[in-house]
Formats: sequence, C-alpha cells, structure tokens
Amino acid sequence: MEWEDLARELSQQTDSKIVLLVMDGVGGLPADGRSELEAARKPNLDGLAKAGVCGLSDPVLMGITPGSGPAHLALFGYDPLKYRLGRGILEALGSGVEVGRNDLVARGNFATVKGGLVVDRRAGRIPTEENVRICEYLNGRLPQREGVEVRVFPGKEHRFVARFTAEGLADALTDADPQKEGQAPVPTAPVAPEAAKASAVVNRFLDDVAVVLNGEAKANAALLRGFSKFPSIPTMQALFKLRPAAVANYPMYKGLAKLLGMDVLSVGSGTADLFDALERNWDKHDFFYVHYKKTDSAGEDGKFDAKVGAIEALDPYLPRLLALKPDVLVVTSDHSTPSCLKGHSWHPNPFLLVSPTAGVDDVAAFTERACAKGYLGRFRSISAMPLMLAHALKLQKYGA
Amino acid sequence: MEWEDLARELSQQTDSKIVLLVMDGVGGLPADGRSELEAARKPNLDGLAKAGVCGLSDPVLMGITPGSGPAHLALFGYDPLKYRLGRGILEALGSGVEVGRNDLVARGNFATVKGGLVVDRRAGRIPTEENVRICEYLNGRLPQREGVEVRVFPGKEHRFVARFTAEGLADALTDADPQKEGQAPVPTAPVAPEAAKASAVVNRFLDDVAVVLNGEAKANAALLRGFSKFPSIPTMQALFKLRPAAVANYPMYKGLAKLLGMDVLSVGSGTADLFDALERNWDKHDFFYVHYKKTDSAGEDGKFDAKVGAIEALDPYLPRLLALKPDVLVVTSDHSTPSCLKGHSWHPNPFLLVSPTAGVDDVAAFTERACAKGYLGRFRSISAMPLMLAHALKLQKYGA
Repeated sequence: MEWEDLARELSQQTDSKIVLLVMDGVGGLPADGRSELEAARKPNLDGLAKAGVCGLSDPVLMGITPGSGPAHLALFGYDPLKYRLGRGILEALGSGVEVGRNDLVARGNFATVKGGLVVDRRAGRIPTEENVRICEYLNGRLPQREGVEVRVFPGKEHRFVARFTAEGLADALTDADPQKEGQAPVPTAPVAPEAAKASAVVNRFLDDVAVVLNGEAKANAALLRGFSKFPSIPTMQALFKLRPAAVANYPMYKGLAKLLGMDVLSVGSGTADLFDALERNWDKHDFFYVHYKKTDSAGEDGKFDAKVGAIEALDPYLPRLLALKPDVLVVTSDHSTPSCLKGHSWHPNPFLLVSPTAGVDDVAAFTERACAKGYLGRFRSISAMPLMLAHALKLQKYGA
Repeated sequence: MEWEDLARELSQQTDSKIVLLVMDGVGGLPADGRSELEAARKPNLDGLAKAGVCGLSDPVLMGITPGSGPAHLALFGYDPLKYRLGRGILEALGSGVEVGRNDLVARGNFATVKGGLVVDRRAGRIPTEENVRICEYLNGRLPQREGVEVRVFPGKEHRFVARFTAEGLADALTDADPQKEGQAPVPTAPVAPEAAKASAVVNRFLDDVAVVLNGEAKANAALLRGFSKFPSIPTMQALFKLRPAAVANYPMYKGLAKLLGMDVLSVGSGTADLFDALERNWDKHDFFYVHYKKTDSAGEDGKFDAKVGAIEALDPYLPRLLALKPDVLVVTSDHSTPSCLKGHSWHPNPFLLVSPTAGVDDVAAFTERACAKGYLGRFRSISAMPLMLAHALKLQKYGA
C-alpha cells in the first residue's frame, strides 16, 4: 500500500478549493548574510507565513538536485522516483508541442550528410528562420503513410522535435544518431519486441527526410534522439478526484500539467495575466496550479538582485488571490535555484500552508531559515498533495 | 528507483574533498541536566556548529539501536536494512583479520571433548596466551588440502576466528556447535545446495583440528558459529565515484572501510595520529572517513566524565583539520552511546555540516538539543552521503 493507492481509495470530490502557487526556484542561499527571500520586501508573503504553518520540503531526496519535471511531479503528489519523463517529452513540452497518448516524440537535429557520411551533426547551426522554413517544407512534402501522422516542429538553430502519431508506437528505441561526425547515419533499432513498429515508422521517416531535403545545401538529413512516449501516468482526476487547472505562462509547465490531466487555462505572458486567469476560472475548478517563472529565471542567470525583484514583483498580487478565499493555499518552490549557484540545487523548498484547519505557528517570514523552524518540519515534496487534500477535507479516514 | 540507483546515475568525480569525522557514540543523554556534549568545553566543535548547519540523524529508523556495522553503513550511504554484515565477518574485522571475496569466516571457540561429548564449550576459558600458542600450532600442523587455505586467528581466552579461502564457498551453513554441554560435537550442514562444498571443507577442518589437538588437555576441539562471506556490497567507487580513504585506529572500522573499497591508511594508535595521517594523505583522496573511538568506549563503560574528557581531548585537533580546507565537513556520531545506558542507543546523532553551499543556521553549539533546532531537521543517516556529495558538487541533476 503506497500513497498512490491510498489516494485512490480515500480521495473524494468536494466544493473546497486549493491553490498551489509555485514560485519556481524561489529557495536560495545567503549572499552577504541574506538569501534572496531574506532580502526581499514581501509583506504579503510574510503575512501568509504568519497566518499559516511553514516547513521545508525536499523535492526528491535530501541532496538530490531535481529537474523541473521530477520537482513538479513530486509537488503534484507523484513519486518522482517512480515516474520519469523522457528527454523527448520534455523537449516537446518545452517547445509547446502537444503530446497525446498515441504520440511518440524525439529530439531532432538537422545534419549535413555527404558521400554517405554525416559531415556536420548540426548542419552548420543553420539560423532558426531556416529551420522554420525547412520544417514547414517537410510537413508539406513528407509522403503520407497509412495510419501514421508525422510532424516536425522547429526549435532553435538546427534543433527540432519530431512527433509520430499512430496506434502501438513504443519508445524502446535506440538513438538514430551516430554521435560522431565522419560516420554513416544510423537507423533506430528496437530494444524490445513491442517497438518493432515504431522502429519501422521512424526509419521510413528518416529515409523520407533524406529524399525530401535532397536539394538542401546544409540541412539534408535528420538525426533523432531520446524517443519517448506520453508517460503512462495516472491523471489527477483518477488519483485525487480533482478538477484541476493550470495557470502558467510557459509551455513546459503547461505541457507537464496537461500530462497529468489538468485543464491548461489560456493565460497571457505577464504576471497579472496569471491572476486574471485565476479569477476568470475560479468557479470551474477545485485545484489551481499557479506557476511563476521569474524567480527561477533570475536564479539561473545568477542575478541575486533580479531574483529579489522577481519576489517583490509577485508579492502585490497576493491580495487578489486571497480575495478568492481559497480553502487551502500553499506557496512554495518546486526546487531551489540559488543565484550563487546559477542553477537548480538540492536545497529544500520553503513551504507555507494557510487553511482554517492548519493552525498557526510562530514563523513570521517566508524565508528558508524561518520555515526551517516551522510546525511542518522537514518533509518530502510528495507530501504536499496529501497535506493540501487533507486541509481541503478531500481525504476520507483510512481504516476504522 | 532507489537512492543507490540514483547514486550510480548521478555521481561524478571532481576534485572537491569531503571529510566525515565520526565521533563514535558521541550522542548522549543528560545526567544532572546536561549531556556529555553539553558538559564538554569544545570551542572548536561549537564554532563549526555556528559556521554551518545542524540536525539530528537516525541511524536506521527511529527507535532502532544499531550495531557499529549498520550505523556506519548508513553514514556511508548504504541502506542498513538492505545490507547486513554477518557476525563472522564482524568478528573477523574486529580482530583485524583480513577478509577477501573468496573467504568464508566464522567465530570459533576452543572446547574440551571427552568420550565423544563436549564437556566444556569454552575449554576452561584458557588464557589468551595459550590461545595464541594453539592457533600458531594449528596453522603450522593442519594438513594442506588442495585448493583450500585455512587459517585460525586467536581472540581473547577461548575465542578465535577461522578463515577458509577457496573458490565457491557459500555461507548458507548451520552452526557447528551443539550449544549445550554433554552433547556430541555437531558438524555443519548446508542449508542451500550451493553451500555443499563449504560444508565439506568446514567439516574436514573440524576433523583435522581434533586430530592435531589430540594431545591438548583442554582445547582439543573447535566449535564454529556465524559462518559468513565477504558481503556482496558495491564499493564506494562504484556507487559514488569517490576515491575514499579511512583514517581509523581500530581494526573493526578499518575492516568495515575496506569492505566498502576504502583505502585504509596506515595510522598510529593515538588521536594525533589520525590528523597526521589525514595531512599526509590529503592529496591522494577525495573522501576521508576519520574515526574517533574514545567517545564510544567511555560511553560503553558508563563513564560520563571520561566521555566528556574524550570530547574535550579531540576538540583541539579540529583546527588542523580545518587548515586543510575541506569543501565539505561533517561531524556526527554513527550512533549514540549515552553513558547512563552503558551501550549503544536509539537516540539520534547530533550532526553538523560545514560547506560554502550549506549556509548557516542559528545553532551555536554542537549538542543534541541545539542540533534538534537546526536547519537540517531530523533525517535518516543514509541521507548523509547524498548531502555530502551534493555540497561537494559531486551529484548531477536528476531528470530534466
């Protein structure tokens, strides 16, 4: 019996509403004695810390630095050590490519082949506009094959995403990439019997590309890596009986949310747009994932002051969120992104939870060190979902 | 997917250096209101607590009192509930007997057999010098058997360790010990088919001993218990890509370290010798396990003041360690040994970690109660290794 089984058994639909506000990468480290959260003026966030209970959460395990995929899965109540999202899927989500349950996706490079050998794995890093043109050309000219739909989506420079749609495509495939220049292109091969069909479909595509792009000077072949399917992962409806919605600006987070069965709301690109969308859709859902990206971006760039600014820029919007009177509000990060490390880190997330059933501890600021002394203690992020459901009175009693 | 799989996937070799200083059994309990750590003057340890972050760690699970084996395994990143070290191996390691991957070891007693019955299972507790003489005699006179090497190593009084070296010796063997006096000696028997060879080898040895020691008045037979092989356990090199070294005075800890693939450095018997060895070998390794035994010995003896003294005796050496500028320094115990309990206990270990990426909490003393309020919270000791590796920047990101 694991949490997932418990969730299926005990969760119940109610009218109560949960908001999970993810300030991406907000957890940080001190520079000159103060972390980004400690340096920021954020009266509303600190007010929430005072009004609720706080703690620190480890996304995967203590010491493990997660990518955005595992970090978000954990917050949504999925074991990040059980469910892994393939590179192809993440590349597709990050590029805004829609991926459904019959889709097989892969990361692609346009390459230059001469005399039967790959002479440039990146086709001279063709400009992105060239890439867009070539993808459009390919999508128009690739021969139709019965029962299979193939589309390519341009990325930056020579990169693209390939999406194959058909029944029965498995992702147990080797990379169709010689990895080194001066070698012949390699077809993909199935590493499990059920991937035979996918292998044939992919290799036919590679042949078709070579024919269609025959006249191109540089981008006259495709290499494919990281084949992955829509992961076999239960939806949040199935596990938690939620009617969940995602309020996010960036494709990757929208895509991730969609994978889990969330309704992805139409949201503009600004911070205010998040709260507009939340207000507009308040009556239609009982779980809202709100994703704020700017804290992570500033951290990744190593810009302490910009990260402080991103925190201070979000803070004034919180009264709009509170005016909706969610039954449960959690504010946390998916993972920490300390500016001094210029990237994701293993440090635990500051975590605050406000709800009528949560009580109050004596944490008075939403910072890493203050949260470390909170009532919630230190826990794994996968406990966030049971906590939110419980405080929303959406979990029945276990056993008699 | 478990931590061990993650470790293999994510660990990377770097030049950064980790020191894990184990003050064996240092965790304690208050007598007259203060624990041993609270009573000790230890400005350097307290300074480290101020300079880093602190917490409490449970060696196995809350409430479980571990032996030195599981407690150390956990600190080294091995699940103590997955890997168990047999009694024979620990007895061998504790006696300084080298054990390799083709060795089968057992704990032995010399016994007195008369008229076909074991009349004294301890051979009248012969003096240790007698034991030494008898083991030498046996090692010189035991008949050579092809492909098998057997050696006995004297312990205290009637105790010894037997080591059988050959290909294909399994340890699924019953004890060759009637357990009671007045009964006939019993041979060992295999409890799994693959132990048939080992059983034959051991029983031939028991017969040989009876012949060779025929003239002895008391110690004229051998009883064997706790057959065990070198455990099938991955090395720290394989799991963590470390170049690890052990700096320890006592055989058992050296042996344990060797089992895990550590280089066991040549160290004298004093406390200063630990730091001499550390300095001498600083350039050759990236992980140093430094073991300080005196805190545990005093605790086992129930001597509160001696344990306080052992803490105070180590403290002045810490500046020598810090002068080496380790990237990550952890000070903790493997398990607690409260003087008032005169033995290992289930109480969690005080734990401090100092590193540029660790930040600082407001714990100002290295004591049980102060550490309980630290940023690291309460965690299982198996998290110590991922934490150390993470702060040494030796773990890559998990997932994208």
